[in-house]
Amino acid sequence: MSTTTNDAVITTDADRAIHIERVFDAPLDRVWAAYSRIELLAQWWGRGNQLDIERWEFRKGGHYRFVEHSDGETHGFEGRFREVTPKERIVQSFEWDGMPAHVAIDTTTFVDLGDGRTKVVTDSQFHTPEERDGMLQSGMESGLNESYRALDALLAESA
Amino acid sequence: MSTTTNDAVITTDADRAIHIERVFDAPLDRVWAAYSRIELLAQWWGRGNQLDIERWEFRKGGHYRFVEHSDGETHGFEGRFREVTPKERIVQSFEWDGMPAHVAIDTTTFVDLGDGRTKVVTDSQFHTPEERDGMLQSGMESGLNESYRALDALLAESA
Repeated sequence: MSTTTNDAVITTDADRAIHIERVFDAPLDRVWAAYSRIELLAQWWGRGNQLDIERWEFRKGGHYRFVEHSDGETHGFEGRFREVTPKERIVQSFEWDGMPAHVAIDTTTFVDLGDGRTKVVTDSQFHTPEERDGMLQSGMESGLNESYRALDALLAESA
Repeated sequence: MSTTTNDAVITTDADRAIHIERVFDAPLDRVWAAYSRIELLAQWWGRGNQLDIERWEFRKGGHYRFVEHSDGETHGFEGRFREVTPKERIVQSFEWDGMPAHVAIDTTTFVDLGDGRTKVVTDSQFHTPEERDGMLQSGMESGLNESYRALDALLAESA
């Protein structure tokens, strides 16, 4: 079975959190590269839309800012890195310009499944249950799955 | 009794929050000016220390960044405004460079006491109880009271 049609598994056990798991058909090194090298990240994060990278300081304390162009609109996203542990974990804040200073903390963990596949686990923690619910209702799930399918395609290319 | 020796009243009823109340001997207009005009804010926020204003966009979605110089050290603080309602309320994110992406949301409310005095109420909400407790243990209370006494002095000057 191809993972290109797999959807991410999204669960919401805690009232301010979203837990996401997705398996990719590529070894850890290549998945890590797709998250940590901006020229690769820019190819999938925006779901195939044009993504302007206004800031990218991939280290503890560094900032990032992306502007996605889609359907004639622009959407800015930004945050700061709390932790960057290569091939293991990225912890970063995340906010969308449309709701400034509504900040989620995303912890992305990379798990080598040992058979050339890699599981990416993302835990998002919001300040309030309302912010979490707003994110779930924003079309986040379909956007996320589009991004992950773009990542599948990128990983297949670079295989 | 002069308010210049008053300490802020700090309470912690909720496990991720800090509630602060402080009364100033000045009318609402002048207290609001001291929070909203950067040339005034710069005179008290840093407790009398040199404060470099690297960014100040005082509007919804705008960013701010200050660097305080004290005892030969520099400390950066930054965030973004969620809401600016003149003479009523400011909601903003807040983080210190020493703990990047550990973000508090501060809601500052201005209350006209009607007798030439103004109460400023600040509610800080943290992502976790541990972050709240860390802030309480960081010397925040004494720093805050130093800032408020510097604001007392500024308000007395401009009276």
